[in-house]
Amino acid sequence: MKLRELGGSACPIDRSLYEVGDAWTLQILRDAMHGVTRFTDFNKRIGVATNILTARLQKLVAVGILEIREPMAGNSREYVLTEKGRDFHLVLSALRQWGQKHLFEDDELMTRVIDARTGQPPRQLSLTAEDGMELTPEDMLVVKSRAADPIEAAEPVDTPRRRA
Amino acid sequence: MKLRELGGSACPIDRSLYEVGDAWTLQILRDAMHGVTRFTDFNKRIGVATNILTARLQKLVAVGILEIREPMAGNSREYVLTEKGRDFHLVLSALRQWGQKHLFEDDELMTRVIDARTGQPPRQLSLTAEDGMELTPEDMLVVKSRAADPIEAAEPVDTPRRRA
Repeated sequence: MKLRELGGSACPIDRSLYEVGDAWTLQILRDAMHGVTRFTDFNKRIGVATNILTARLQKLVAVGILEIREPMAGNSREYVLTEKGRDFHLVLSALRQWGQKHLFEDDELMTRVIDARTGQPPRQLSLTAEDGMELTPEDMLVVKSRAADPIEAAEPVDTPRRRA
Repeated sequence: MKLRELGGSACPIDRSLYEVGDAWTLQILRDAMHGVTRFTDFNKRIGVATNILTARLQKLVAVGILEIREPMAGNSREYVLTEKGRDFHLVLSALRQWGQKHLFEDDELMTRVIDARTGQPPRQLSLTAEDGMELTPEDMLVVKSRAADPIEAAEPVDTPRRRA
């Protein structure tokens, strides 16, 4: 599947990657979560070429992750997260927690997020079943159905896990 | 910051993006979570050019996300997730849930994962504080410290959110 075809895939991960599946876009969204709204501020923080930044911001607006807030006279245009965009913070939180756990030596400087009320970091994310049990990759099977159908109507998808 | 410099960033999201920040890599990891292990199977499922797939698999081995399981005679080499790799399932779960919520019309075919024991989907991920309160992007501040330091030792990082 070519990257441009991912947007029509039945897999929600493929579709997500079509909208946000490159490093620049994910950096833009991280900074937007921290309140960055202006082109010059994204540019300064991410250090990305202006033509790339322009293209990424346009795409994020086109797919409804960012929206343009028209500026007061004399100010520059602002890009703010939509509800769909704000919902993406869970993906970035998961990426942050994975990086914190696996990609730092003890003496390296690391940025973290804290709850502004308490000064404490959020809990580790965990994928759990309805009964509260923690789920691992081996616990899961892949099924397919129409998006609006109940899960009971879903058909198995053939994966090596299912055959094992 | 150039993409190749992200691996030395103080931000865990940057470092994560250095290792896994492209769509092909994330598709490989999704399929690895479902039990795919062989080059030919990744190739068939993702439909990526073999030179790209080779480079991505080599990188994932080099950074310790996949490891090579030497084959029995006559079989092809297998790529299996390390513990670091398996931990990445939370990121893919977050991406999947976001895509399921925002990127499908009701009548479109969608793949989902279910708990093999119960047939039910996992709970929605949620970022919570130590006291159980759900955290939104606006609730968070960014701080910086050495990775091994307690959170109380962390210094504020200047962001628009902090100034607001």
